[in-house]
Amino acid sequence: MMITGFRKIFFAFLLLPFAGWAQKLSLVPYVKPLIGTAKMGHTFPGATVPFGAVQLSPETDTISYAVNGKYNGDVYRYCAGYQYEDKTIVGFSHTHFSGTGHSDLGDFLIMPTVGKLQMNPGTADHPENGYRSGFSHANELAEADYYRVKLDENNILAELTASARVGFHRYTFPASENAHLILDLMAGIYNYDDKNVWTVVRVINDTLVTGYRQTSGWARTRTVYFAMSFSRPFKEYGTQNNDNPQVYRGFWRKFNQGSNFPDLAGRKLRMHFDFDTQQDNQVEIKFAISPVSMSNALENMRKEIPHWDFDRTKHEGQALWEQELQRIVVDVPTREDKINFYTAMYHAALMPTVYMDVNGEYKGLDQEVHKAEGFTNYTSFSLWDTFRAFHPYLNIINPSRNADMVASMMAHYDQSVLQMLPVWSHYANDNWCMSGYHSVSVIADAVIKGVYKGDPMAALEACVQTANTRNYEGIGEYIDRGYIPAESSGTSVSNTLEYAYDDWCIAQLAGKLGRKDVYDTFIKRSANWKNMYDPGIGFMRPKMADGTFKKEFDVLKTEGQGFIEGNAWNFSLYVPHDPAGMMENMGGRKRLSRYLDSLFTMHLPDEFFEHTEDITREGIIGNYVHGNEPSHHVAYLYNVTGEPWKAQEKVRMILKNQYHNGADGLGGNDDCGQMSAWYIFSSLGFYPVTPAADEYWLGSPAVNSARITLENGKTFTVRVINQSGKNVYVKKAMLNGKQLKGERLRYEDIINGGELLFYMGSRK
Amino acid sequence: MMITGFRKIFFAFLLLPFAGWAQKLSLVPYVKPLIGTAKMGHTFPGATVPFGAVQLSPETDTISYAVNGKYNGDVYRYCAGYQYEDKTIVGFSHTHFSGTGHSDLGDFLIMPTVGKLQMNPGTADHPENGYRSGFSHANELAEADYYRVKLDENNILAELTASARVGFHRYTFPASENAHLILDLMAGIYNYDDKNVWTVVRVINDTLVTGYRQTSGWARTRTVYFAMSFSRPFKEYGTQNNDNPQVYRGFWRKFNQGSNFPDLAGRKLRMHFDFDTQQDNQVEIKFAISPVSMSNALENMRKEIPHWDFDRTKHEGQALWEQELQRIVVDVPTREDKINFYTAMYHAALMPTVYMDVNGEYKGLDQEVHKAEGFTNYTSFSLWDTFRAFHPYLNIINPSRNADMVASMMAHYDQSVLQMLPVWSHYANDNWCMSGYHSVSVIADAVIKGVYKGDPMAALEACVQTANTRNYEGIGEYIDRGYIPAESSGTSVSNTLEYAYDDWCIAQLAGKLGRKDVYDTFIKRSANWKNMYDPGIGFMRPKMADGTFKKEFDVLKTEGQGFIEGNAWNFSLYVPHDPAGMMENMGGRKRLSRYLDSLFTMHLPDEFFEHTEDITREGIIGNYVHGNEPSHHVAYLYNVTGEPWKAQEKVRMILKNQYHNGADGLGGNDDCGQMSAWYIFSSLGFYPVTPAADEYWLGSPAVNSARITLENGKTFTVRVINQSGKNVYVKKAMLNGKQLKGERLRYEDIINGGELLFYMGSRK
Repeated sequence: MMITGFRKIFFAFLLLPFAGWAQKLSLVPYVKPLIGTAKMGHTFPGATVPFGAVQLSPETDTISYAVNGKYNGDVYRYCAGYQYEDKTIVGFSHTHFSGTGHSDLGDFLIMPTVGKLQMNPGTADHPENGYRSGFSHANELAEADYYRVKLDENNILAELTASARVGFHRYTFPASENAHLILDLMAGIYNYDDKNVWTVVRVINDTLVTGYRQTSGWARTRTVYFAMSFSRPFKEYGTQNNDNPQVYRGFWRKFNQGSNFPDLAGRKLRMHFDFDTQQDNQVEIKFAISPVSMSNALENMRKEIPHWDFDRTKHEGQALWEQELQRIVVDVPTREDKINFYTAMYHAALMPTVYMDVNGEYKGLDQEVHKAEGFTNYTSFSLWDTFRAFHPYLNIINPSRNADMVASMMAHYDQSVLQMLPVWSHYANDNWCMSGYHSVSVIADAVIKGVYKGDPMAALEACVQTANTRNYEGIGEYIDRGYIPAESSGTSVSNTLEYAYDDWCIAQLAGKLGRKDVYDTFIKRSANWKNMYDPGIGFMRPKMADGTFKKEFDVLKTEGQGFIEGNAWNFSLYVPHDPAGMMENMGGRKRLSRYLDSLFTMHLPDEFFEHTEDITREGIIGNYVHGNEPSHHVAYLYNVTGEPWKAQEKVRMILKNQYHNGADGLGGNDDCGQMSAWYIFSSLGFYPVTPAADEYWLGSPAVNSARITLENGKTFTVRVINQSGKNVYVKKAMLNGKQLKGERLRYEDIINGGELLFYMGSRK
Repeated sequence: MMITGFRKIFFAFLLLPFAGWAQKLSLVPYVKPLIGTAKMGHTFPGATVPFGAVQLSPETDTISYAVNGKYNGDVYRYCAGYQYEDKTIVGFSHTHFSGTGHSDLGDFLIMPTVGKLQMNPGTADHPENGYRSGFSHANELAEADYYRVKLDENNILAELTASARVGFHRYTFPASENAHLILDLMAGIYNYDDKNVWTVVRVINDTLVTGYRQTSGWARTRTVYFAMSFSRPFKEYGTQNNDNPQVYRGFWRKFNQGSNFPDLAGRKLRMHFDFDTQQDNQVEIKFAISPVSMSNALENMRKEIPHWDFDRTKHEGQALWEQELQRIVVDVPTREDKINFYTAMYHAALMPTVYMDVNGEYKGLDQEVHKAEGFTNYTSFSLWDTFRAFHPYLNIINPSRNADMVASMMAHYDQSVLQMLPVWSHYANDNWCMSGYHSVSVIADAVIKGVYKGDPMAALEACVQTANTRNYEGIGEYIDRGYIPAESSGTSVSNTLEYAYDDWCIAQLAGKLGRKDVYDTFIKRSANWKNMYDPGIGFMRPKMADGTFKKEFDVLKTEGQGFIEGNAWNFSLYVPHDPAGMMENMGGRKRLSRYLDSLFTMHLPDEFFEHTEDITREGIIGNYVHGNEPSHHVAYLYNVTGEPWKAQEKVRMILKNQYHNGADGLGGNDDCGQMSAWYIFSSLGFYPVTPAADEYWLGSPAVNSARITLENGKTFTVRVINQSGKNVYVKKAMLNGKQLKGERLRYEDIINGGELLFYMGSRK
């Protein structure tokens, strides 16, 4: 361990010569974690390293207990724990999703206070009645892996940074004989009365506390272990147990468990640790987490941060971010563009998160402890979102990481008693959120592009097995009838469309592996999208079991129309694997062109927004909904109608309208990096319309130039001639000096290195 | 794994030549597990091997949910899950304490039914409204490691046997298209509304189910993992989830979880597995448990019972019992005596239980997974009871096992954040039940007698550290004042007396190890019993902080008088380490003699019984309470008054009055073998009045002869001349041909082998 620790320091110094930390961070300053923290972006502003297991970030509210099992609608606001317009901070917790539309986590909330001990969070209106504090954005700074805020209530400066598995807190106190650090083990994001299943705390000595928190939330069975180390001894500590009074158990009467008692357990615990402080005394906390055990958490802490140098951890974390961002070095027209770009890269490097200890152990979907052999295990796969552009993006800039993610998905499959690949998995659970079985898209794409090095036959088997889970969301009926009847499901159309695309991915994978039998089965299934198209009205439409289309139908509404997060206007375009067939079905080029024109320009009635999830008014252009994922390929469809210039102007419009530098700079949930990955691809001038197909469709680059440093040591460069806000039209595209035909780029065109040269103009 | 399995079979055959199973069991037939199952014996009648982790036994009632955190008094009746007078059986569960006065466990209740599926247990009055069934003792058979009963309701024969970690069920059904096996994961002993913390179940295939059950009962944080294998495939299965309706979570709407859904979790689950049966079809279940993981449970099953031969497991288990019982071969006057004796040996070989998997792993007090290296780890230490005679008994007949128990207690200490040895520990918890820190007695006794082979200095340190836990039950005040003031504790007198004895044990250990400093401290503390004695009334009495005795005091009452499970009459005799000093304090031989005479003969008012726990009217002789432990040495105190004949007649009276062959054959809780160990020692003619002292006091043997086969291969024989029910007086005792002086036997007298010869007579 000493050798490892020494090595780590040694390497850190190699990367970061002592005097040179600051000036080396040329791209990190463009990351603004506060982007997306207002309204529905649902990003968090706190500290984390790329794909780190710890996301140490402030909560402005989360403590929204449900009554009688019905959840408080407000919890949706707090998917990431933070809303920019709020005036108070409740505390700082260690785990956060980035950009989700449902949530969980918020583990281990810590808050510094002085004066009278208050063990409840208080309310936003009356922070003085609890441990929370007012704050002002003027006193707040959020950088990659560093967050700082002054807590007005008690004049405490809070600073946060993190390594992969350890949160590092630094609190600067005023003079007080009553300084406290609150550890709220009841707090959590999307909390219900019964979410806290069990908590254990062991106070090992006056600077070390270990324990775990077990919850049943979005993840049904989830335990996070911790080890918490203080930079100086606390003088006293105590525990508030908010459980109902309990039946006779020896441990309640043998000790006074409220005060200085080290062996705690219960459902609803809050703790305080007390200090005397002089003016500007700092108390620091290292807080490590583990999915496996307290001892692993402690090992994580000792291996990752074997010192008390907060600034060093911050510098090391920011160096990791610099390294991550340096994968693409762009020259863009404005500082705002640069902030958008690198914040998008930042947001596209937060999830999935590392889910294993430094020793490789993690708790699997089967609730057993496993050791990741030969790969880094990840969790929190929001696949309905991320299969579209996020994983394809990693296949270019960081394929080895994406290979590990596929390996993690395969491990999930191996541990699944349902024999299913992940749908929306986190922390040894699948919450089966959203629709489709889009793992197959990610896997097929990674195998076909040569990114995934594991057994491809096993991968194919996992895909086939998943696609044949008859009792999951209508798959049985889909297999039998070629579509899901409207009677069986409220999302019969979108499910059918998504299954059809996923089946095409399986067919591609089978074809690549020479499994013609599987190819034939799934290529046939992939045509099932046709069963949803009603030529009478020109839209995809719910079909009844008897083969007739559902009578009541509104092409503008989302709710109750057979779709999820999208209406018929948007979802009727969801045939990414056969856009030409789709166009033909819809009546040809002109019809599709007119359809797309209408989509982007029509005026929507206000009631449209009442029932549309996860997006703001700003997340919509006409009826085109950029804030939800099903339309992410839509602008590019003008390439099928033979009107690439329309694709180009729409892409540039979306880049400009839907992304900006404010806290409300995202028009909808960032969705674990998918919104950001769209931004990055589209800024570079191309987009993976059909993951698992070996092509990227051209759009209109927003950069002046971009240099992608590939893992294989090669460089792929995008250069743009005549770039300007008006010159959105691509006059010519040259790949390595040869004109590019058909607005398509292949994976090897990129990964083998080279130059893509765009000539822009102001007219189509 | 195969080699180990093969070896095991091989050795089993060596021990048990195939054709010779039945006739080899010469002592097992004298074990009657039903003894103690009526009233307050709290033993269980089901199947287990010696010290086995599984105790597979019927529940006649347990489902006693508390209302608003107040427990239903009836649960006390069901500490072992079974009351002989009950008319119905709810099911068969896998874990049971033997003879405790508080309880827990009752994990994984299984019940076979036919006909209409009923997923609730029903009531004793109306078993037909639930899955329970009437039964009759005429159709019931309980042997060591075998239990059989006919379930009248559906005419199903239930048979149970077990290996150390696996319960083996055999159910013989009538013909039915609706045969069911219920697995009730809500059921448990001493159940409260909130006892079930979490449950996970995975249906791996149509013959294998795994999972775990996490509870917070007497053990605060306890998880038992399982693997359940069926001898034939079930055709269907289903789950009833009795949780409150839950907040939106994808997994509730993505699948129908009630029927054939394999991936289950929740707080309150019941399951059913369905079969078609022909007349007399048998469905068998192997049910393995583990404290660590489902995979360990499965490994336990595969290693311990790699076959489907129920009878073989029964025969192997009974062979283990025969081996255990053969340690003492007695000749006794009557068949009833023989049944009493071997059932006592049986009851003294049930707890503590093996607490580790076949691979040596277990979950420690620190909630971490440990591997027992070089010892077998045990749990469920009821030390307030068992330090007296049970552990001393093991030191003679099975010292290597007791050494492992001490090693287990040391492991507990190493894992304790309180730095305490166990008080009443089970399943990675301490419930701190009863008083004292009697681990130190067991440890000192085992080290001094050379039984424990671990580091004696570490053992001493653990004892000292435990005895200095100032915030535990008045220890701080005890150290400062020499007694616990009445204001501070409701059991100030008994605690002080027990601490004084424990301190004497620590002094003995320190003396043995040459640690004079520790010896001096603790020998001084061991005199603290004197501070409790009120010479004004001649009884131990609560003392106030100001040094005066508490005014209101009743020497007959237990409740509120400063004692636990004993009144002043009984507890005033509790100075096992200095009976001579105690006698002197009480005024000498005659005064003590008169005191003892009165104790055994006085008539107690009826209200005495209303507030006396854990014993029946029959558990009392005069005011001598044999059903509770503090008096277990009392009869032997006549040896101090110079009246050994009185000790002899009292011991014989107690042996005769307090133990018989009926279901109500125990006068109080068996207390994890302590009551039984008293019986065995006293029947042999000697008793360890002062554990940690190297002496056994003579009483009056009840056997004709006894041959103890020692672990070192030697034999210690007790032979009795002129034994009869009237000849209760020892005229002479010869050890290896020499007359024994002073009514004392030493450990080496026994362990080196030899013969103790008693000459009996009918007059003192």
